[in-house]
Amino acid sequence: MQIILGSQSPRRRELMAGLDLPFTAITIDADETYPAELQAGDIPYYISRVKARAYESQLTDDQLLITADTIVWLEGRMLGKPHNEAEALAMLKQLRNKTHQVYTAVTLAQKGREPETFVDCTDVTFGDLTDEEIAHYVHTYRPLDKAGAYGVQEWIGYVACIGMKGSYFNVMGFPVHLVYQALKKRGF
Amino acid sequence: MQIILGSQSPRRRELMAGLDLPFTAITIDADETYPAELQAGDIPYYISRVKARAYESQLTDDQLLITADTIVWLEGRMLGKPHNEAEALAMLKQLRNKTHQVYTAVTLAQKGREPETFVDCTDVTFGDLTDEEIAHYVHTYRPLDKAGAYGVQEWIGYVACIGMKGSYFNVMGFPVHLVYQALKKRGF
Repeated sequence: MQIILGSQSPRRRELMAGLDLPFTAITIDADETYPAELQAGDIPYYISRVKARAYESQLTDDQLLITADTIVWLEGRMLGKPHNEAEALAMLKQLRNKTHQVYTAVTLAQKGREPETFVDCTDVTFGDLTDEEIAHYVHTYRPLDKAGAYGVQEWIGYVACIGMKGSYFNVMGFPVHLVYQALKKRGF
Repeated sequence: MQIILGSQSPRRRELMAGLDLPFTAITIDADETYPAELQAGDIPYYISRVKARAYESQLTDDQLLITADTIVWLEGRMLGKPHNEAEALAMLKQLRNKTHQVYTAVTLAQKGREPETFVDCTDVTFGDLTDEEIAHYVHTYRPLDKAGAYGVQEWIGYVACIGMKGSYFNVMGFPVHLVYQALKKRGF
């Protein structure tokens, strides 16, 4: 059996590599729009399944596909990937001094089998950040590819993340312990 | 001002580097025995200060020394670094299916100033691990230099760590957000 990780995120590839199981990483292009009525964890649930469906038909009998999607959820609203530096600055100003949720969904797909999806949630508390600190981070690290405009394994995670409840790896990329358990159940 | 990190831990050096502040890393040899009556966070508190004292007299006016110590605390007992593979296996068998505490103390020392020490605690919950999984980890990763016989950023952290409350970085090396705040207060 061959594991295919359908994600271009270097963090997810790093987590997957840490499981000591051989895998191939690919990039899947999928439409990430979702029904407006979806809330919180239902959003990445939906998108991770869309990503799996976009590649599913190409799977052979001996392949398992893993897709994932992460969102940041702040007080009833979703923060996606910022479109530009101004949006990134604004997102981080919203996140400081508050607790938000990071939801990551993972979908496992095999040929001729209904895809399996699970969602993990981590509470992340940000302490205070000055406007200057936020500007330093955005200009130096350019977090435009990251939900909520931050990477927890980067400078801003080091200085701002004052508390967490749940899985750190879920915030970094995906809930690797759940991926491992699901792969184990399938005989990997 | 020059920052000196008195630790040979690659994880602490990585966290320190992530703060984007120049620093020098050195190794400090200190006697890590501690008074038997000490409990929980008081143990790394004591040891991080011993480490600072062992180098303090060599500090010049423009240097700040950072030392740290981490212990794993399980149901009223300390797990230190295992002396051999058998001890590492035994420690991990004790940790599975339980929540333990990781205490890290950090001491900042400057010439002519009383050392400042703070302690951070993170609750870490391990899920189930088979004897085979524990043996795989110990033989492959040889965690003999790690308190509690595990590195949270390694395979075992990925598969076993099912929940955490507090700072992940505190478990990985030291509470980098508190180090940052302390440095900021001192004008770095």
